[in-house]
Amino acid sequence: MKLNIALLAGDGIGPEVIDQAVKVSDAIAKKFNHKINWKPALTGAAAIDAVGEPYPDETHKICASSDAVLFGAIGHPRFDNDPSAKVRPEQGLLKMRKKLGLFANVRPTFTFSSLLDKSPLKRERIEGTDLVFLRELTGGIYFGEKGRRDEGETAFDNCVYTRAEVQRLAKKGFELAMTRSKKLCCVDKANVLETSRLWRETVQAMEKEYPEVVVSYEFVDAVAMRLVQWPNSYDVLITENLFGDILTDEASVISGSMGLMPSASLGADIGLFEPIHGSYPQATGLNIANPMATILSAAMMFENFGLQKEGKAIRDAVNNALNKGIVTEDLADGGKSYGTKEVGDWLAEHI
Amino acid sequence: MKLNIALLAGDGIGPEVIDQAVKVSDAIAKKFNHKINWKPALTGAAAIDAVGEPYPDETHKICASSDAVLFGAIGHPRFDNDPSAKVRPEQGLLKMRKKLGLFANVRPTFTFSSLLDKSPLKRERIEGTDLVFLRELTGGIYFGEKGRRDEGETAFDNCVYTRAEVQRLAKKGFELAMTRSKKLCCVDKANVLETSRLWRETVQAMEKEYPEVVVSYEFVDAVAMRLVQWPNSYDVLITENLFGDILTDEASVISGSMGLMPSASLGADIGLFEPIHGSYPQATGLNIANPMATILSAAMMFENFGLQKEGKAIRDAVNNALNKGIVTEDLADGGKSYGTKEVGDWLAEHI
Ligand SMILES: CC(C)[C@H](C(=O)O)[C@@H](O)C(=O)O
Ligand SMILES: CC(C)[C@H](C(=O)O)[C@@H](O)C(=O)O
Repeated sequence: MKLNIALLAGDGIGPEVIDQAVKVSDAIAKKFNHKINWKPALTGAAAIDAVGEPYPDETHKICASSDAVLFGAIGHPRFDNDPSAKVRPEQGLLKMRKKLGLFANVRPTFTFSSLLDKSPLKRERIEGTDLVFLRELTGGIYFGEKGRRDEGETAFDNCVYTRAEVQRLAKKGFELAMTRSKKLCCVDKANVLETSRLWRETVQAMEKEYPEVVVSYEFVDAVAMRLVQWPNSYDVLITENLFGDILTDEASVISGSMGLMPSASLGADIGLFEPIHGSYPQATGLNIANPMATILSAAMMFENFGLQKEGKAIRDAVNNALNKGIVTEDLADGGKSYGTKEVGDWLAEHI
Repeated sequence: MKLNIALLAGDGIGPEVIDQAVKVSDAIAKKFNHKINWKPALTGAAAIDAVGEPYPDETHKICASSDAVLFGAIGHPRFDNDPSAKVRPEQGLLKMRKKLGLFANVRPTFTFSSLLDKSPLKRERIEGTDLVFLRELTGGIYFGEKGRRDEGETAFDNCVYTRAEVQRLAKKGFELAMTRSKKLCCVDKANVLETSRLWRETVQAMEKEYPEVVVSYEFVDAVAMRLVQWPNSYDVLITENLFGDILTDEASVISGSMGLMPSASLGADIGLFEPIHGSYPQATGLNIANPMATILSAAMMFENFGLQKEGKAIRDAVNNALNKGIVTEDLADGGKSYGTKEVGDWLAEHI
């Protein structure tokens, strides 16, 4: 297969972890006889510095004409204390999601047995946890009309959803559930919000197309509780943009494997793959960042092209490395640890 | 002191746990020489059955002319699967909050050493956890304009906040922080929402009035993570209605003492006090529900009248009962347990 992949390294540790994912992906390409054409482009604070905005048109052109985007991380501390600044890295993220039509954010949370003790939760609560959130990513209160009235004294944000937006996200949820344990949970706040009632009635109407899938409907506050109490009782969860933002982050810390969690953002034509961790500015350039989440994001990318064996080869290598202790210091528990680059090299060699 | 207290027992186990709180409050009144005039009124499913709506005008009149409201729980399973039904118990709740002006929901989360092992989190993560959320309760997306367009194909919910609404909530937050460890965390999503930016700038502007209080600003997704990772790093948190709904429920499960957590909803003139647990329909009438959360809500009520000794007397009695194992079956760990009424009797006798 011939693949054009846009490469958005971004800020902080982004470039370092992206380098390792490229190395491992190239090893996969070699082994399975694919050709990857990497197309680097600017994003985030790096793009603001270079051309004055976080998601330049040039970058969009490169992404839109690629088969997938591999993404590092964006964000820089100098923007952190001024959320109302005119130009900020996060705006690039939102613009990119919207312009590329990345409406479905896929956020798996699973456990690695060697990492269970890193979880803040008791072992018996998390063993076997393997759930996936599908978060709607281009609608809701993130993209509705927002502003001020009354000379700035009143602020508003509008949350809007159309039935079609709910349907395309829910369809991905039902389809994913069919490939897993056929359990789907629709998370909403239908006892208060009209948009949630639209979500619920739309999903309810789709149930008959997927008679094998058992659908449950739970309120977002109840899910926020049960995720901590019994995370392994969930499988596939679908939800709107803001609820997904909160709950996927909450879910990411329960497994103890947060530093390893990949994600995908899917649209009609193109997918973007990125680690869930941030740009971790303090670690920039120190060769200590854990590259595994980015490498597992590359695995998701191959799987999304239908290249299951390729994805599995990456996952197996990562499992191997974890079992053998070829890990960065965050996972070394005070024992021997390896650099970002060394972990990447080892994984590339063991593909 | 002469106190008029509206008594809203509500649904499910509500009446049973309220009875115990009345008994204990009467014991307090006797010991400290107060006079409590209880004024029962209908609410929730019970009110829908009796008069066709969940917060009848008659009930509002009784509440509005009282010094405080003691509330049990509302909700009945027959309404659960139809969130768009015309008349539902939760609507009564929202109407009550709005009409009584209960803009600040106070939700403490603390630990009892004898219950630490009930938490899904590891002991070392939760030891010493003692935090309070102040959730804005009469604004935001709960009460903004909502509806449908395009023949029902598009739904919208508007989130609106005025500076004055933020100020009165934040003021309570600063004041509470002054009585505790002087740490205040403002939770928002200022990197995306205009209402959050209003929250942040308003709180920032108030900082100079409380120079001793150290204020931090955190995004709601980050707080959803850190609450699970390091709950004992928080003290007082202030936030808007929907974020508060999600985060206070998340926080309630981390301490292991969820079944014991009280809450208060405060307005300009009147306070409402209620356990955070629900109406627990399966347990109705079985004399097994734990009355302690409701009894501790009564303690908050006395403290809110400035009657600190009275509140402490209740808390001491509850601690005593926990240490002596005078508990309902949810806390008995398979050992000897007592009925709802027996726990209430014991506490009333040991005031
Ligand atoms: C940075 C921010 C705008 C973003 C979001 O809220 O979507 C982030 O939290 C995420 O989840 O990717
Ligand atoms: C029942 C519901 C409307 C309510 C809310 O969302 O406020 C409840 O979850 C709560 O937190 O009191």
